[in-house]
Amino acid sequence: MARVNDNYLKLKAGYLFPEIGRRVKAFTEANPSAKVIRLGIGDVTEPLPPAIVEAMHKAVDELAKRESFKGYGPEQGYDFLREAIAKNDFQARGCDISADEVFVSDGSKCDTGNILDIFGLDNKVAVQDPVYPVYVDTNVMSGRTGEADGSGRYAGLVYLPCTAENNFSPSLPTEKVDLIYLCSPNNPTGATLNKETLVKWVDFAKKNDAIILYDAAYEAYITDNSLPHSIYEIPGARECAIEFRSFSKNAGFTGTRCAYTVVPKTLTGTTSSGERREIYPLWMRRHTTKFNGVSYPVQVGAAAAYSPAGKEQIAKLVGFYLENARLLREGLQAAGLTVFGGVNAPYIWIKTPGGQTSWEFFDTLLSKAHLVGTPGSGFGSCGEGYFRLSAFNSRANIEEALSRATKLLK
Amino acid sequence: MARVNDNYLKLKAGYLFPEIGRRVKAFTEANPSAKVIRLGIGDVTEPLPPAIVEAMHKAVDELAKRESFKGYGPEQGYDFLREAIAKNDFQARGCDISADEVFVSDGSKCDTGNILDIFGLDNKVAVQDPVYPVYVDTNVMSGRTGEADGSGRYAGLVYLPCTAENNFSPSLPTEKVDLIYLCSPNNPTGATLNKETLVKWVDFAKKNDAIILYDAAYEAYITDNSLPHSIYEIPGARECAIEFRSFSKNAGFTGTRCAYTVVPKTLTGTTSSGERREIYPLWMRRHTTKFNGVSYPVQVGAAAAYSPAGKEQIAKLVGFYLENARLLREGLQAAGLTVFGGVNAPYIWIKTPGGQTSWEFFDTLLSKAHLVGTPGSGFGSCGEGYFRLSAFNSRANIEEALSRATKLLK
Repeated sequence: MARVNDNYLKLKAGYLFPEIGRRVKAFTEANPSAKVIRLGIGDVTEPLPPAIVEAMHKAVDELAKRESFKGYGPEQGYDFLREAIAKNDFQARGCDISADEVFVSDGSKCDTGNILDIFGLDNKVAVQDPVYPVYVDTNVMSGRTGEADGSGRYAGLVYLPCTAENNFSPSLPTEKVDLIYLCSPNNPTGATLNKETLVKWVDFAKKNDAIILYDAAYEAYITDNSLPHSIYEIPGARECAIEFRSFSKNAGFTGTRCAYTVVPKTLTGTTSSGERREIYPLWMRRHTTKFNGVSYPVQVGAAAAYSPAGKEQIAKLVGFYLENARLLREGLQAAGLTVFGGVNAPYIWIKTPGGQTSWEFFDTLLSKAHLVGTPGSGFGSCGEGYFRLSAFNSRANIEEALSRATKLLK
Repeated sequence: MARVNDNYLKLKAGYLFPEIGRRVKAFTEANPSAKVIRLGIGDVTEPLPPAIVEAMHKAVDELAKRESFKGYGPEQGYDFLREAIAKNDFQARGCDISADEVFVSDGSKCDTGNILDIFGLDNKVAVQDPVYPVYVDTNVMSGRTGEADGSGRYAGLVYLPCTAENNFSPSLPTEKVDLIYLCSPNNPTGATLNKETLVKWVDFAKKNDAIILYDAAYEAYITDNSLPHSIYEIPGARECAIEFRSFSKNAGFTGTRCAYTVVPKTLTGTTSSGERREIYPLWMRRHTTKFNGVSYPVQVGAAAAYSPAGKEQIAKLVGFYLENARLLREGLQAAGLTVFGGVNAPYIWIKTPGGQTSWEFFDTLLSKAHLVGTPGSGFGSCGEGYFRLSAFNSRANIEEALSRATKLLK
């Protein structure tokens, strides 16, 4: 009798974004003439940089000729890309990360879920609250939690509240934890962890023999020079952290698909009998057995992000979205809202006005201003009363959205 | 204290192909002038069909313009591709499979591993022996087995021997099993399951409430019109089977990456409390939470495989490899070897001569004829004394390999 994985039955109704999709669909079907502007899902809108397009065309042409055809590549990614990543994203910032510690993948969403494969089910897992739902859901699916309570919190997980009161920077856990997800610049709050704070986290992890799963998918949006781009800028992080990065939000790869995970060779965990083991060969085994590498033209495109032209074009692209974020932040503040984030991040985190719940504000914005955002409560119980807007859009849409929101809030 | 997944420690040394890689590397470093021909890994060698190249270029150009740019696509794949798959690969052969039962992914290797996520750990798993190692290794990693014995067999798995004695067609299990991997055309033996045999398997699965994981990645190589291309050609399969397909071996996508999995909505399993549940929503949840869709230009390329030009070009490509297979099969038979497979499959399965073990024959072929194949024992204990050659190569290499092998075997 084929048995299903009962853990899936613990998952609360639909993943956040499908639920938003359902509500928007119902609204647009009932109001076909409404011009809905979507600031919900954090999806880029601007075309791929020309340097990347050119590189991808060349790579497709290589696949068209026998002498340059590429079959299976290394599962971990081609050296040309791993080396460009190690050099530009890490070594250039003084981080001691080598190319063979970089594992190229098709997405950070996949990586942050898949990484759990190599860890025992008995690890105590800490997440920020609000949190990117994939961290939580993949832990539920793999059986590291009990049932959810009324607020949507799963038994067994340690939730680290991030609210205006602590400036969206979580306190160190007061109980023993083994795996800690940190996301900076943060999705959904747009908050960033500064060096002093990250030092505290690295020290905590080392002292408690915990591993930090550091999601830096929005690293490109950091404009403040004092902020760390990588956790490996912190001494000791090679002994306690895995870092996730993506080409989605800097190079516009949400539909093109490329990301990477850094697993330092100096990172260790223990077996159930207390023996110390390197994490690196476990992830290597997982990645080579359950994955077959990223599409060749996509890897060539990603590598072009590090060419001089690519870098310049990406800086412009990121600058464009950051200007959107500035307009949203300042415009909504002027309209009377309390607004966080949007400085070193593409996300604006709003305190919902008039004591509305997050979903009430969602429905208000959708029905009265035809704007779609993301309810903060969808990211966790501490997100209740907050609302996320994304700066990924055309300038015209951002301006129109601001004008509608301002009218609504008058 | 971060705990590793102890199940990984049960895995036997290196995945088969890395081990081959190590031996070949050692040989070529010691013999730099040797012209090694690789007939080991089943990787295609011929360029992508022009219709696919053209489609991919167009798709890359779409990404270069704001008005046609594509961000996140549906995780399950674009409708244009899912519909082409359902229509051409299933409905055209009388299989009742709809587009929304098709989940597009980046590889069958990933899919056959990932599918295990949605099943309980207490399922009894049956695999053919010899077997594609990924089925076994992913079950070990997820904790569905005990330790391996001296022959490499893991406790808890049910092995179904496939040898010359049963014509490489496994007998029905004599004990209760819940998940059954079948691969046809088979990797590594090149054997195919005919309709009568598949009917027996479907009946067995339905009677025992088991689910068949049907890997048809080599379906394009079927030339015998009486053989089923899909398990859904068998009545009742919608109630007991998941099918895996790939663009790797027909359209040459090993480096381009696209595949798909069919999960019928009529397929069910049970919870641990005996409640019946549909498998479809579980896979949907897994696929949308832990995966973010296949690269857009890749999906456009895959869809071009179903255009009239694409179909013609792919038929030619498959025909080319099949002719390689025929040359290898007949040439090696003429040289005195006992040879199986290579008719409806790109793999030749050889009985090693003179009672050599599989790895002995590997070392003989490598050192004396500079040919690389795959030791049958790497696929399971019943593969001992067999050896796999792949027909994926240039005609010149196939002819040269044959000539060297013939000389060696004299």
